[in-house]
Amino acid sequence: MAARLRFNAFTMNCVSHIHHGQWRRPDTRQLDYLDLDTWVDLAKTLERGKFDAIFLADVIGTYDVYGGNRDVAVEEGLQTPVNDPSLLIPALAYATKDIGFAFTQSILQEHPFNYARRLSTLDHITNGRVGWNVVTSYLEDTGRNLGYGGLPPHDERYERADEYLDVIYKLLEASWDDDAVIKDTENGIYADPAKIHNIDHVGKYFDVVGPHVSEPSPQRTPILFQAGASTRGRAFAAKHAEAIFIAGRNPQGAKAHVDEVKQNAAQYGRNPDDILFYQGLSFVVGGTEEEAQRKKAEIDEYASTRGYAAHFAGGIGIDVSQFDLDEPVGNIETNKVQGIVKGLVEAAPDKTWTFGELVRWATDTQIVGTPEQIADELQLWADAGVDGVNVMYHVTPGSFEDFVDGVIPVLQDRGLAQREYAPGTLREKLTDGASGPRLNDRHPAAGRRRAPQPA
Amino acid sequence: MAARLRFNAFTMNCVSHIHHGQWRRPDTRQLDYLDLDTWVDLAKTLERGKFDAIFLADVIGTYDVYGGNRDVAVEEGLQTPVNDPSLLIPALAYATKDIGFAFTQSILQEHPFNYARRLSTLDHITNGRVGWNVVTSYLEDTGRNLGYGGLPPHDERYERADEYLDVIYKLLEASWDDDAVIKDTENGIYADPAKIHNIDHVGKYFDVVGPHVSEPSPQRTPILFQAGASTRGRAFAAKHAEAIFIAGRNPQGAKAHVDEVKQNAAQYGRNPDDILFYQGLSFVVGGTEEEAQRKKAEIDEYASTRGYAAHFAGGIGIDVSQFDLDEPVGNIETNKVQGIVKGLVEAAPDKTWTFGELVRWATDTQIVGTPEQIADELQLWADAGVDGVNVMYHVTPGSFEDFVDGVIPVLQDRGLAQREYAPGTLREKLTDGASGPRLNDRHPAAGRRRAPQPA
Repeated sequence: MAARLRFNAFTMNCVSHIHHGQWRRPDTRQLDYLDLDTWVDLAKTLERGKFDAIFLADVIGTYDVYGGNRDVAVEEGLQTPVNDPSLLIPALAYATKDIGFAFTQSILQEHPFNYARRLSTLDHITNGRVGWNVVTSYLEDTGRNLGYGGLPPHDERYERADEYLDVIYKLLEASWDDDAVIKDTENGIYADPAKIHNIDHVGKYFDVVGPHVSEPSPQRTPILFQAGASTRGRAFAAKHAEAIFIAGRNPQGAKAHVDEVKQNAAQYGRNPDDILFYQGLSFVVGGTEEEAQRKKAEIDEYASTRGYAAHFAGGIGIDVSQFDLDEPVGNIETNKVQGIVKGLVEAAPDKTWTFGELVRWATDTQIVGTPEQIADELQLWADAGVDGVNVMYHVTPGSFEDFVDGVIPVLQDRGLAQREYAPGTLREKLTDGASGPRLNDRHPAAGRRRAPQPA
Repeated sequence: MAARLRFNAFTMNCVSHIHHGQWRRPDTRQLDYLDLDTWVDLAKTLERGKFDAIFLADVIGTYDVYGGNRDVAVEEGLQTPVNDPSLLIPALAYATKDIGFAFTQSILQEHPFNYARRLSTLDHITNGRVGWNVVTSYLEDTGRNLGYGGLPPHDERYERADEYLDVIYKLLEASWDDDAVIKDTENGIYADPAKIHNIDHVGKYFDVVGPHVSEPSPQRTPILFQAGASTRGRAFAAKHAEAIFIAGRNPQGAKAHVDEVKQNAAQYGRNPDDILFYQGLSFVVGGTEEEAQRKKAEIDEYASTRGYAAHFAGGIGIDVSQFDLDEPVGNIETNKVQGIVKGLVEAAPDKTWTFGELVRWATDTQIVGTPEQIADELQLWADAGVDGVNVMYHVTPGSFEDFVDGVIPVLQDRGLAQREYAPGTLREKLTDGASGPRLNDRHPAAGRRRAPQPA
């Protein structure tokens, strides 16, 4: 793949998604997240900029690791409250024509038989413009509230995810034949019963007889996103994902991740080029370098380091509240900390940074500059094998407007961003037509399809 | 209540909802059910007619009782395929201003913690225009596919429903105080952690710690619809429902049902007038009686009696395929049949009817005539204590257009239909402002609210 870059707007149906503290600014609509107009306006702006998709992240549960409670998450609006992402999509689909919609749902949230119908419904009413980001949850709170008595262990969640996808594939790919729906008004036959099949899935976690209750949608299985960073998560992504989110610190780091997953993918019989890699990046765009730096200074002023720290703690499941956010990193004795925190402290580019600054730095990779400078940087990421970018916002829709109006035209001139949408489903659009509307025959889901029947 | 009648459009995200066989006609858009425009156009038509709500029925599963298989359901498009109803609502809400949206979801479908967020999200993005029709499922297929190993027994489903609602009430009514969200941009406090509470629910079916992950929505708990017809179902409805669907054969039958539920409601400490009763009715509207009869003849011509029979069989869980659809009812020896079927045969108004005609007759109550004749009939239902009507379609949007353009103006002149929407949420609109936006203090949910705290 590569050639052009793909662009997702990375956002969430909540007040504060990634860059905490910015919601207090007068120039952001984060406080209007409950209003559909906020989302429709954003989608239209993104479609004007030929963004490929709006990506709606999600958690169901609360960040309660930092300090052993949820106080900071609640005060910061840190993904709390958080509303259902999938319920924004029908309104956005109605108000737009080409842009795609990816949303996150955990395999712990809902029984696959019920969820399969929601996926099919979304794919139908968006005309195939929907994608699913498959996640396995990381908040203990999620497992506690959904009847698992706590979060199932990490590898068990992936084992469960494997079976969950298996059920989804059987329902979406194998239950209704392509020619099952005939709409024969003459004889009063809407669909042919002989071409609709039970799936008879009996597994460790799920027993599902079938058949699927929705007829085949444009993509059947919506295009699959994944973001697992652990060894098990990367293997899962290599097996199932068509698009993977990565969080490289720099193009070299991204390349290492891309190469690893591509090697794994080949082991699963897939063509490594079947997977698109999206790097998460934040941008501060200025007409001049000075303007960009001025905007960055304003972002820094509003940034809430404790918000970043509570987010970080919830994400890794380790309480880091014993570290003073204003303490220089150089003062932390690394022999007294372990694991991820130790790695973070050792990776600090500047030992005079405070712990709060370090945690904020660890959250994402930020590119600050003029459109031309940003385009130069993005070329490096593209050269490293990155296929697309998850654009994170500081303020919304402001950050996206800056990108659409400032950066996209420069990228288009350089062939790094599309000028028009490709026709068809999201799967076809993202691959510029290299894929058909359906999962290809190298994907494990293809093994779940029924063998062609003799005529 | 009473005074004016309320009107819901009764429909479903599928090809053939109630009146089977009509989908074959050129003047219906049932084959376009996958297209959002079909639904938006319908919602706009209904809003023009000041309909109170569009009501989206649902099943998840297949009608496979008739003949012991799903063949007839599949061929007739009889609620198979069927897509998720709730995912239509965001698009309809975006495209309209006042009309409400009620949808069906079974308490077997989804864990209440996850579902509570979907309810809150819908209530937020519709500005309080959503209602939930609480059902307990009746298709064996539903239980088989959702991990219950078959449909739980009838009374156990209601016991489960009681606890399910209890969890929903705790999450929606008691988890976030009214003044929890403060949006203090000065001090960077979105919400006050001291005003967000765990629910610590420990029950027979569910353990949910909480807190709810959505902030309070306009109605908190969306207005609750119910339709249980069994003794247990009627008691459940009397306890929880704010609007109840009934299927009286005539105004007297409706009155008996209304009176029974009102008596039960009083036993639960509720004011019997807190419950609205909606009668399901189908209409055939003509400018003249002759035109109405001509339209009825056309409907009869397209009607598929085997579709009605398969629907009936699935609804009661009894295979009636041994009865010849063309056999006169008088030929059936009632001492050889039992239960619901026996009751149906004995109730046949005309023994020369065929079994197919009888089953079709049993499906609904049909009113055929001019707008004035229909208004006369509706006055009788209103006098019997009916508060509203679930209008079933033969063709869509045609049946609804006939009603909006033909009948509604006559009803408005007689004070039987509203000329304008009342302000506020669906709960306020349906009670013409007699209720506030929230469940009142007589509802069992009120007992789940937290006691006022000392200042």
